[in-house]
Amino acid sequence: MRRDVNLRVAGIAGSLRVDSYNRALLAACVELAPTALTIEPFDLREVPLYDRDLEDEGFPEAVTALRSAIATADGLLIVTPETNAGLPAVTKNAVDWASRRPVPTPLDGKPALVMGATPGRLGTALAQAQLRGSLAHAGAIVLPRPQVFISAAGEKLVDGVLVDDETRERVAAALAAFAAFVVRLGPEGSP
Amino acid sequence: MRRDVNLRVAGIAGSLRVDSYNRALLAACVELAPTALTIEPFDLREVPLYDRDLEDEGFPEAVTALRSAIATADGLLIVTPETNAGLPAVTKNAVDWASRRPVPTPLDGKPALVMGATPGRLGTALAQAQLRGSLAHAGAIVLPRPQVFISAAGEKLVDGVLVDDETRERVAAALAAFAAFVVRLGPEGSP
Repeated sequence: MRRDVNLRVAGIAGSLRVDSYNRALLAACVELAPTALTIEPFDLREVPLYDRDLEDEGFPEAVTALRSAIATADGLLIVTPETNAGLPAVTKNAVDWASRRPVPTPLDGKPALVMGATPGRLGTALAQAQLRGSLAHAGAIVLPRPQVFISAAGEKLVDGVLVDDETRERVAAALAAFAAFVVRLGPEGSP
Repeated sequence: MRRDVNLRVAGIAGSLRVDSYNRALLAACVELAPTALTIEPFDLREVPLYDRDLEDEGFPEAVTALRSAIATADGLLIVTPETNAGLPAVTKNAVDWASRRPVPTPLDGKPALVMGATPGRLGTALAQAQLRGSLAHAGAIVLPRPQVFISAAGEKLVDGVLVDDETRERVAAALAAFAAFVVRLGPEGSP
């Protein structure tokens, strides 16, 4: 990768909980990103549940901010929990708002990286599968691999810090692969 | 079915939009339900996005009302849109709140019926597949068939009324099958 590359990636965590594992994982991503890539977290707390009537009145302020954060970034990182063997409402809500017109939507052609952490054993595999499907449907281009499934999150994310060395290496490798992916895809709108 | 059976089913539509196709479909279900089955719609508008911190302070009022509506009913009907080839946040949010402890949760062992309408061509098939997975994960027992996928919703649900005769028959058949399913399963807690 060229040394002068400076990529900006919008990062969102699909949890509102202050001490959430996935907020902590997003913070770890900020730290573990390669030099060429800067992750800028966006907090979903003020984003309301999707409501077409609300949309018809104009995007709420937090939705406009979310859409702008994604649209102006070179890529999108989504870090998601898993609930009931699926994608949590908070994560899906952000994707749905970002997918709305006018075109090009913030997700059209946007390089995306997904990962997730859970206290359970599946490592958010089912949530990520659903998330990949919805992102692709909305036109985002999701890095196929490496996939990052973090199980037993309570042992690896302690007091908001990703302490597990092997997991740190996996996260760093995924972020490096994503940086190369974004560079390979080139600027949006290019043929 | 015995003539004196009187089943109460909580009904939710996974859309906040006032003129939503799925709210209209839920209203049609109320009308088309067999005599033995009464559907009581519950409006999700006041249910906030799931937030563990909020939960730790005690369930919000609307969440307690939702959980009580499901817990005290003989069954649960969920009518869902589809967004980005998946389950909308509003629907998943209701399932996630209802799945929280204490046990037995409102969804443990609860007979459930899912259907959905969309302007698109898939008839909410992908959303319903995800919904079935999450409901099963939460312990609900979902009627396997008939499945009701309503596509081209704008032609079938006009001014809030389900006007398409063939669709009305399909919905009525699913509701009748669900009533028999609830009776066959018997009271919750039975062996």
